[in-house]
Amino acid sequence: MALTGFLVRGLHCYRKNSCLKTNSVCFLQTFSPIFQLEEYGKLLSGSDIAEKIQTSLCDQVQKFKLHHSCFTPQLAIVQVGARKDSNTYIRMKMKAAEKIGIIATHFCLPSTTNQTELLKTISHLNLNPSVHGIIVQMPLDSANMIDSTLITDSVIPNKDVDGLNTINQGKLAVGDLASGFLPCTPNGCMELIRRTGILIEGSKAVVVGRSKIVGTPTAELLKWHNATVTICHSKTKNLPEVIADADILVVGIGQPNMVKGDWIKPGAVVIDCGINSLPDTKRSTGYRLVGDVDFEKARKRASWITPVPGGVGPMTVTMLMKNTVFAALKSTLGNKV
Amino acid sequence: MALTGFLVRGLHCYRKNSCLKTNSVCFLQTFSPIFQLEEYGKLLSGSDIAEKIQTSLCDQVQKFKLHHSCFTPQLAIVQVGARKDSNTYIRMKMKAAEKIGIIATHFCLPSTTNQTELLKTISHLNLNPSVHGIIVQMPLDSANMIDSTLITDSVIPNKDVDGLNTINQGKLAVGDLASGFLPCTPNGCMELIRRTGILIEGSKAVVVGRSKIVGTPTAELLKWHNATVTICHSKTKNLPEVIADADILVVGIGQPNMVKGDWIKPGAVVIDCGINSLPDTKRSTGYRLVGDVDFEKARKRASWITPVPGGVGPMTVTMLMKNTVFAALKSTLGNKV
Repeated sequence: MALTGFLVRGLHCYRKNSCLKTNSVCFLQTFSPIFQLEEYGKLLSGSDIAEKIQTSLCDQVQKFKLHHSCFTPQLAIVQVGARKDSNTYIRMKMKAAEKIGIIATHFCLPSTTNQTELLKTISHLNLNPSVHGIIVQMPLDSANMIDSTLITDSVIPNKDVDGLNTINQGKLAVGDLASGFLPCTPNGCMELIRRTGILIEGSKAVVVGRSKIVGTPTAELLKWHNATVTICHSKTKNLPEVIADADILVVGIGQPNMVKGDWIKPGAVVIDCGINSLPDTKRSTGYRLVGDVDFEKARKRASWITPVPGGVGPMTVTMLMKNTVFAALKSTLGNKV
Repeated sequence: MALTGFLVRGLHCYRKNSCLKTNSVCFLQTFSPIFQLEEYGKLLSGSDIAEKIQTSLCDQVQKFKLHHSCFTPQLAIVQVGARKDSNTYIRMKMKAAEKIGIIATHFCLPSTTNQTELLKTISHLNLNPSVHGIIVQMPLDSANMIDSTLITDSVIPNKDVDGLNTINQGKLAVGDLASGFLPCTPNGCMELIRRTGILIEGSKAVVVGRSKIVGTPTAELLKWHNATVTICHSKTKNLPEVIADADILVVGIGQPNMVKGDWIKPGAVVIDCGINSLPDTKRSTGYRLVGDVDFEKARKRASWITPVPGGVGPMTVTMLMKNTVFAALKSTLGNKV
């Protein structure tokens, strides 16, 4: 892409979206492309966008309550064991739920829980009409062998606010984006991409990673938003060459800083779904979180890039809340939603 | 790809596969690349491969009968109305079934059939333990509005030998290729590709078309066979440029001769899923069938290419039979299959 094109698109994005952070307040007055590339504001803050969406969801819930006083969206979060990272994610979900007006209940089962017991818990929640959404926190921290796909699929489709059971994956694959729930991380990525203002239709999108949680459904979503999508994985040859062609790049592979800055096409939108912990003696925690993309170098080429943390993570939580509110509305209003 | 590479791969393919037709019997003795390109045998005959697989399935059924005398795979083909093309396809399926030793029963419902009646028919077949596979012939030729997805999904997953219901699509999307049924046309494409001897892992595959029957599941299969897959559609820009990069090209868009010969990468494997009727006064029928790829020009660049007719079509029918035999074996032996 010519540099001019990149800059024009960049300006377009900035004008349309108030949630996009910029480091350069006066780039409209500069004319040196190099200067602009270095100075161009391109931080795509998931935290800011998530906050706005959560505020909007809160308003929606409050307004709906005016006419349906009993309306209270309820989310059941089922956890087996006590993995530290799971505890952190669950806390984030509980906090977001509280802010919006969703009752989130944490079902914390011991690590001795077996498959039958877990299925029984989910079955009770499936049958409970006041519970609108169920999420089983993965990975399971159990002393017993539990089939995680069986567990995910045991959540009935109309409470599968995580959007990860097989029926919802199938719907997404064939382009039915309306009747099920969209999976949270991929839907969060799409929301971030949309807010940059880039024209998804006709763009070249590259998704690195084919996991059932991130890569596969994100590629499907981009395809049904009319991007030409290439999906890459561990067996892909010449990954830098494939990435160099991407107008939109989504990475979800769990390898710290694996995608180098100079692989990025100038002007690309980069969404980093990775969240990896690296030792860091300079920090009190002893570690720092980084994504799958070498952020500092990539931001010099990308038009917009998500930070880690504060990029995709908050959007995932927010999309879970959006699905829960939608499930509750659907349960109350039926097909009128 | 260098011409040498193409030729080496071509030879490799020829040696490994007896089902591949060649127009040139003495290419091993020629050394002019141009001459070889023009003369190289590269017809990937679905008819021949299908015949061999059907013979093998027939043997399998007969052998199994020696120990389980009551074993008879049964396939129910449900049709609404009487579309001419559907009648032709059903005849092909009945003929293949008979050859293999599958009892295929044609349930021909009038075009006045409504959704409830059709669902009732499928429900009976779902409950009938002697029926192992059910296929509803699409498109439905009904005077009434019928939701075709609802119909496809009403076939219980363990009889969905068409592999097209939402659960089977979901399984395929996330890489579970074993517990459900693979959709017939995509699975036939994979069988054809495998028989060329090309190394799928690490190859660049381009799928043109994103239909739920052909493009989407074929892209998923290629992805889970470790190709780097790009999926193109009506909104793709610079289609010739994308196709020019494909080691494996699968086209399923229903547009006669849409993909031009000079778009093909020299040495590519080309699978044409299109079947289009063009007026032809020279033929007694008044028409001829052509694919989505300009066959005559493409065969000069491809290493292997499927003809239309006689390419993907017979493989689709054969994969349906394979799924039906598998369903019957599974029903008889349970998880031991």
